[in-house]
Amino acid sequence: MAIAWKNLDTLVSFEHLNTFKNKVNLREAMSGENGAKRVRRYQVPMAEGMVYNFAAKEVDDGVLAALGILAKEAQLVEKFEALYNGDIINTGEKRRVLHHLARKQQGEDVIVDGVNKRDFYLTQQKRAADFANKVHAGELVNEEGKTYNTVVQIGIGGSDLGPRAIYLALENWAKATGNLKMDAKFISNVDPDDAAAVLNAVDLSRSLFIVVTKSGTTLETLTNGQFVKDALEKANLDPTKHMLAVTSETSPLAKSDDYMEAIFMDDFIGGRFSSSSAVGGLVLSLAFGPEIFARILAGAAATDDLTKNEDILENPAMLDALIGLYERNVQGYPSTAILPYSQALNRFPAHLQQCDMESNGKSVNRFGEEVNYVTGPVIFGEPGTNGQHSFYQLLHQGTDMVPLQFIGFRNSQLGTDVVIEDSNSQQKLCANVVAQIVAFACGKDDEDNNKVFKGSRPSSIIIGDQLTPESMGALLAHYENKIMFQGFLWNVNSFDQEGVQLGKILAKKVLAHDTEGALKEYSDLMNI
Amino acid sequence: MAIAWKNLDTLVSFEHLNTFKNKVNLREAMSGENGAKRVRRYQVPMAEGMVYNFAAKEVDDGVLAALGILAKEAQLVEKFEALYNGDIINTGEKRRVLHHLARKQQGEDVIVDGVNKRDFYLTQQKRAADFANKVHAGELVNEEGKTYNTVVQIGIGGSDLGPRAIYLALENWAKATGNLKMDAKFISNVDPDDAAAVLNAVDLSRSLFIVVTKSGTTLETLTNGQFVKDALEKANLDPTKHMLAVTSETSPLAKSDDYMEAIFMDDFIGGRFSSSSAVGGLVLSLAFGPEIFARILAGAAATDDLTKNEDILENPAMLDALIGLYERNVQGYPSTAILPYSQALNRFPAHLQQCDMESNGKSVNRFGEEVNYVTGPVIFGEPGTNGQHSFYQLLHQGTDMVPLQFIGFRNSQLGTDVVIEDSNSQQKLCANVVAQIVAFACGKDDEDNNKVFKGSRPSSIIIGDQLTPESMGALLAHYENKIMFQGFLWNVNSFDQEGVQLGKILAKKVLAHDTEGALKEYSDLMNI
Repeated sequence: MAIAWKNLDTLVSFEHLNTFKNKVNLREAMSGENGAKRVRRYQVPMAEGMVYNFAAKEVDDGVLAALGILAKEAQLVEKFEALYNGDIINTGEKRRVLHHLARKQQGEDVIVDGVNKRDFYLTQQKRAADFANKVHAGELVNEEGKTYNTVVQIGIGGSDLGPRAIYLALENWAKATGNLKMDAKFISNVDPDDAAAVLNAVDLSRSLFIVVTKSGTTLETLTNGQFVKDALEKANLDPTKHMLAVTSETSPLAKSDDYMEAIFMDDFIGGRFSSSSAVGGLVLSLAFGPEIFARILAGAAATDDLTKNEDILENPAMLDALIGLYERNVQGYPSTAILPYSQALNRFPAHLQQCDMESNGKSVNRFGEEVNYVTGPVIFGEPGTNGQHSFYQLLHQGTDMVPLQFIGFRNSQLGTDVVIEDSNSQQKLCANVVAQIVAFACGKDDEDNNKVFKGSRPSSIIIGDQLTPESMGALLAHYENKIMFQGFLWNVNSFDQEGVQLGKILAKKVLAHDTEGALKEYSDLMNI
Repeated sequence: MAIAWKNLDTLVSFEHLNTFKNKVNLREAMSGENGAKRVRRYQVPMAEGMVYNFAAKEVDDGVLAALGILAKEAQLVEKFEALYNGDIINTGEKRRVLHHLARKQQGEDVIVDGVNKRDFYLTQQKRAADFANKVHAGELVNEEGKTYNTVVQIGIGGSDLGPRAIYLALENWAKATGNLKMDAKFISNVDPDDAAAVLNAVDLSRSLFIVVTKSGTTLETLTNGQFVKDALEKANLDPTKHMLAVTSETSPLAKSDDYMEAIFMDDFIGGRFSSSSAVGGLVLSLAFGPEIFARILAGAAATDDLTKNEDILENPAMLDALIGLYERNVQGYPSTAILPYSQALNRFPAHLQQCDMESNGKSVNRFGEEVNYVTGPVIFGEPGTNGQHSFYQLLHQGTDMVPLQFIGFRNSQLGTDVVIEDSNSQQKLCANVVAQIVAFACGKDDEDNNKVFKGSRPSSIIIGDQLTPESMGALLAHYENKIMFQGFLWNVNSFDQEGVQLGKILAKKVLAHDTEGALKEYSDLMNI
């Protein structure tokens, strides 16, 4: 059947879904034996042995059926298929959307200008792997013949948040398993203190710096690249022994002699979806070795496989997307919190904040027509248990409803632990996430109103055995695919970001002193 | 005049304020010469030479006048006075609220059980300072006679976020100015990987560990304390040469022989407001020296002085609170972003997220009666320019309005910089924040709807010369006082946190295997 790109509010099934507003009294549903039944029933297997449990979401069989019908009418599976088969899904920029190809051939070959794109991504992966292997083997060394011990990624936005979150997620795991080949650091902010602080913390002579910018024109990244180059030269080091580029083949960086090596990306993988490409591949292959990066991709590919399933109960990314849509467009909740009970995932919410809000924070549909419904929510989050001692107060007793997404693992990464009051730390961590779900859902009565928990606050949890390269990759792809499906449902183009342009233009005016009115006054206040 | 604690919706002036909904067309107001005028006029001096500029907020002289009347009717200044004079403002826990006393005697002496509380806080500050001075002078050394080079704070929530944010804010400044006496690290999460990772990164034999828990019963902190103690013993180190406590005089820790030193706090300074007390004082005095900590307190005290002013145009914290209330309760915006254009402030939004959401995320008033209006908003944020390449898309073009609070400094901390395209990084950073304010307010038309910026998105900016101990202290107190005023306006008790209790109780049940229903099922899923 041909794909029809329709606004959410023109779908019959969405009108139907709206009749299910406030259908489930979550507090009641999650109490007693019925609650136990929900926990057992309302879960869907994810890739890599993980599980998506949505028992504590405001759904029942009726809502789920309505969501399934919506998924069909919105042709979610067909749209995903069109995407991985190379259709021009990014309508604004007239581009294909091919990040799934970086991990696996999901459908037909995608040939662009005579190039098989899967081959292209594989070639770049292999080039990054070969380079990393040579560094690790001591075949590539610095001016003095010494090996490199640190890799620094210089990028911003999509070239920073995803790779950084993944590195931090696996750094300790890699240490514990003997897979940490090099330390990785990240420079992103144009604030000169960011780069200066990182440079203060590394041995320049033994560091590799990757300048990551697709266009080769991202001002922050070029500036920080130059900042680093200056520092190398001041230290009498040869930049071509220390600087790498990840960029497109047509970028000025690709042709420059300044770089020891350049690995290529293309226009069909957007920044915030680029962790699977050379953007994540080079830095993660250097830090952990190419085999570990391949395991991350394998986890992501396994998620993508599931994402093709038509049945929403066999497609956790789609189900998650649909429940999120129900919360946003039917229940009317304006934000969503991502709460990983794993310190290693401490920057994963920041990555998802970008991935989600930059993709679906749009007011016009794919055809540039204004939509009459709300789209992407505000996304925020911090790791638990930390958040429990912070903003959870509002989540439990505030006046607004904030849907929650927990993530938890049965086992820690390092295995070092301590027993206090008959339980170890990992057990306490797990006990806390379990306790929170039930506290949010079931609440508690009290004579003192100040101690009343109304409950009925919806949450889901993704449960895994341990945070490993595979489960990290699976998590990454789960959220990428969830966001993609929500974009399909809202009928927006999730793959452009015109909203970032105006600020860039005005910043250039300010720097050129081509200002008037408020812009000039603010510039004066900041002494620019 | 006696203080009347009244709900917001019972105030005549709030009814009046509601007639000003959508009063200002911000896009129009900020365009052309009128916009320039607003930038010049709509600013208020803050402490330490900083400025609060609210030209790009949706206010005009009419709205400001209405806010001024509201401030009077709500008796904001009188309530602050009652607070610093020692009234029982924390009604839930029947406690005084005295964090301002840790920086300066603002009003009358506060005597509790014969103890002058200002003297008490000063005594503890002096004890922390003396201890730090002895460590720095090499009078206190480890088992082998070596000096200590690292201090690790073990705390969670209020014992972690504020001190951590301040340490990170000033770490590079301290390096550049020769004031970094010891590195500081932080362990908070009960996730054992958090503590293990920190311990892997320090030289145990030369580290001091501060266990920070007021009650001496915070499970996460005790667990991490024990984790560290085990590690010390395994390394054949004497815990009493490495472990310190910050706790109340009545806590089990205060009487324990396990600690080299114990500095005291009391019940009248809540966790999220405790950065000025020994909770922040000991770790920051060890890291930077007591003189630097005193300068932070001086900046905070200068803000507190301004906070006593009746005129809202001479009281930036009050004005900020009132504008926030207008955005939340009149305009109906559900969240607020804090966007510091300073990498050093990268964890300041997380601190404010706690301080704000835990204080004012309440549904009942000071008397335990449910309120009929929304209270604390969701708070989130990341440093610029990073956020520009991430979630700003939604802020510019999403379907929801998110009020913004920028923070910017004219000068960097380290002074190391690089010139690209005729400007240095700090100029680019400043140009970007200026550009964003105007882009959000004024927007841009375009034939292509996808490139349209509707503008009228409100923001304010706090501008300072440089992020120093004084300006850091002033910023901290600004937000603390803003949050306090908003609590007064909403008539909630901003100083308790009953919403964190239920989760603790249920977590204990899980660990004791005293579970049934959903709680048992989830526990099984997590293998607890």
